[in-house]
Amino acid sequence: MRCAAAADTKTGVARNANIAKLQAGYLFPEIAKRRNAHQAANPDAKVISLGIGDTTEPIPAPITDAMVAASQGLNTLEGYSGYGAEAGKLPLREALVETFYKGVMEPDEVFVSDGSKCDISRFQLMFGPGKSVAVQDPSYPAYVDTSVMMGQTGEFNDTNGQFNDIYYMSCLPENNFFPDLAKAPKTDIIFFCNPNNPTGACATREQLTELVNFALKNGSIIIYDAAYAIFIEDDVPLSIFEIPGAKDCCIETCSFSKYAGFTGVRLGWTVVPKQLKFADGFPVINDWNRVMSTCFNGASNVAQAGGMGCLTAEGFQAMQGLVGYYKENCKIIKDTFVKMGFEVHGGTNAPYVWVGFDGRPSWDVFAEILEKCDLVTTPGSGFGPAGEGFVRVSAFGHREDVEEACRRLEAVYGK
Amino acid sequence: MRCAAAADTKTGVARNANIAKLQAGYLFPEIAKRRNAHQAANPDAKVISLGIGDTTEPIPAPITDAMVAASQGLNTLEGYSGYGAEAGKLPLREALVETFYKGVMEPDEVFVSDGSKCDISRFQLMFGPGKSVAVQDPSYPAYVDTSVMMGQTGEFNDTNGQFNDIYYMSCLPENNFFPDLAKAPKTDIIFFCNPNNPTGACATREQLTELVNFALKNGSIIIYDAAYAIFIEDDVPLSIFEIPGAKDCCIETCSFSKYAGFTGVRLGWTVVPKQLKFADGFPVINDWNRVMSTCFNGASNVAQAGGMGCLTAEGFQAMQGLVGYYKENCKIIKDTFVKMGFEVHGGTNAPYVWVGFDGRPSWDVFAEILEKCDLVTTPGSGFGPAGEGFVRVSAFGHREDVEEACRRLEAVYGK
Repeated sequence: MRCAAAADTKTGVARNANIAKLQAGYLFPEIAKRRNAHQAANPDAKVISLGIGDTTEPIPAPITDAMVAASQGLNTLEGYSGYGAEAGKLPLREALVETFYKGVMEPDEVFVSDGSKCDISRFQLMFGPGKSVAVQDPSYPAYVDTSVMMGQTGEFNDTNGQFNDIYYMSCLPENNFFPDLAKAPKTDIIFFCNPNNPTGACATREQLTELVNFALKNGSIIIYDAAYAIFIEDDVPLSIFEIPGAKDCCIETCSFSKYAGFTGVRLGWTVVPKQLKFADGFPVINDWNRVMSTCFNGASNVAQAGGMGCLTAEGFQAMQGLVGYYKENCKIIKDTFVKMGFEVHGGTNAPYVWVGFDGRPSWDVFAEILEKCDLVTTPGSGFGPAGEGFVRVSAFGHREDVEEACRRLEAVYGK
Repeated sequence: MRCAAAADTKTGVARNANIAKLQAGYLFPEIAKRRNAHQAANPDAKVISLGIGDTTEPIPAPITDAMVAASQGLNTLEGYSGYGAEAGKLPLREALVETFYKGVMEPDEVFVSDGSKCDISRFQLMFGPGKSVAVQDPSYPAYVDTSVMMGQTGEFNDTNGQFNDIYYMSCLPENNFFPDLAKAPKTDIIFFCNPNNPTGACATREQLTELVNFALKNGSIIIYDAAYAIFIEDDVPLSIFEIPGAKDCCIETCSFSKYAGFTGVRLGWTVVPKQLKFADGFPVINDWNRVMSTCFNGASNVAQAGGMGCLTAEGFQAMQGLVGYYKENCKIIKDTFVKMGFEVHGGTNAPYVWVGFDGRPSWDVFAEILEKCDLVTTPGSGFGPAGEGFVRVSAFGHREDVEEACRRLEAVYGK
């Protein structure tokens, strides 16, 4: 019999074989580690990050004022609130509909959360294991990683840099970053991020119609990640629910993170149409509600107050000002790479510029830019094998840092 | 071929069979529904809730001041923060160790989150399906419900009110609410809430030592939920890590919800010892870190600032004042039921009074108290079949509401 002092301290609990499949760390902590190592080796370097899509600008006052008032209110009987509805405060759900889905969705189809990344893992909990999955390649790593974790995939395949049994829809310059659906297999779930992170590409109405019809034909559910929709300037849909048939095959998730600099405040939302049904006719929204009620306890009341602040006329205008600031950053970055003759994509409808480096390995380019320019970017291959040869440059920096970064890049890579 | 306009709008995605096993709704939304129905039928009734353990008192100023300052800071360059470490800000992790685990745990073993309920579902994601589970009966519903959702259990068994293939450790007056471990089978996971929700019972040092040795012998991992530890007044351990051997078999989760009225603010933490290992020797903390990095994006920065406020000398004293207020409520409730001659348990080391109604069905008693007293309680059977015959009365009300509730109870049930 073992006792507390036994030398062998292992439990008998088997490690989750699905988690064991995951390669190395999650992408962004890995980048942070390399950045820290560079800084430690070069203590005087002023490292600028255009890597992780982390917002840097202060949140406009009409929005923080709402958060201050909510925080102050918590000290009063009138302003105090405890547990709220797991799906968020009704006025916020109503304001989201009024602002983004007027006449299209109902407030009880909108679920407020602590962010899309968290909702993505809850989607996996809702769907359960054994579902087939397709993702854009490259794409935001959480789709693949949570799929692996939930057991939707096989092992990692070193030969092609993909997990087995998950379909990677290549999004490359040659197909204008929209997958060739004629070749794509039928899957249960399709993760689709539009405008895309990391390529910055944005699908047209015709392409989204093709995607929705593809899902309807196959009986698939699309998880449509619209986290960057506010950056769209072309005349294309801001929500998948503008496409006929989308309510029968789509869930949309979105977030205040990049809209209002809420990356640290944590507030997002997910829209599940009442008419979306599993194969047995059971409404998906019911199970989503059950997952939210059981695995979540509502977004922070102060964050929700901030969300309400974002959706007042004044707050919304301020929020668009913030988006405009990052868009201008993006233009500066894009112009710099274009001027230097690089292959450049994205950067118009999304805050990311996708830069090709003649097929050089992304991590090599990442390391070179970090070493020579003291700049953090994100290696394209971190988003999937089709990202190899590219780096993602994020526009979420202070203007002076972006300008300084561009000067450093020109000094090293300019002709 | 189907098209967007087809009449049959089902997708081909199979509903998660594990979620389909869950009975009705999650307990607390169900109670809210019944309360709302009662209020609608009796529009003039002043319904008082001693049901869901929801805090009602304002958060003390030393704590909200920290949140106000953080919210204001978000409007400034110096005070703005974007994505933080998924496991929380280091100063908060350090302050948690200094306050609750000094000399026992390290800051990098403490993971800040948006609450224990959310961490419980992430534990399930980490462990993965196919793990055997034991729970106290009665207990907080999230343990069973998330286990069902992750596929650790069989179907619900109408005969005994239990899910198959999950071990319910009966905690009844006759065993002083501590499970008979000599009869308990070996399981991978043991959920153990102490002080217990809903019974209010609190295990002694000897009992916890017995529990830890039981887990060590079986190679089990205990998920020790200490959400109510701050209410303990007896001379018993405040953390499972006071028990020798616990670091080899325990994870502890805790929360500011009941400590500081943060039920709406959302802040908790989980402690995973570095030396805790899976059967293959892999450190559990590494997989927990991977789950937190992949499925979570950090607790709200404003909530974390509030947490720092709680752990200053002034904030901590204010927090204990708040706890003292609810403890006084609890004494009033307990004394009322004792005086009326009911079978009464708990209410000393926890903010819950567990009242026996001579074996009458809990939902009947719940309905009667709601109907006759306009009071919301929680039916004991909602926490598991061994809770049948009891109701849980929560002390988280305003003093005048608690006193009014006790008057109403005495009017109906007093001798």
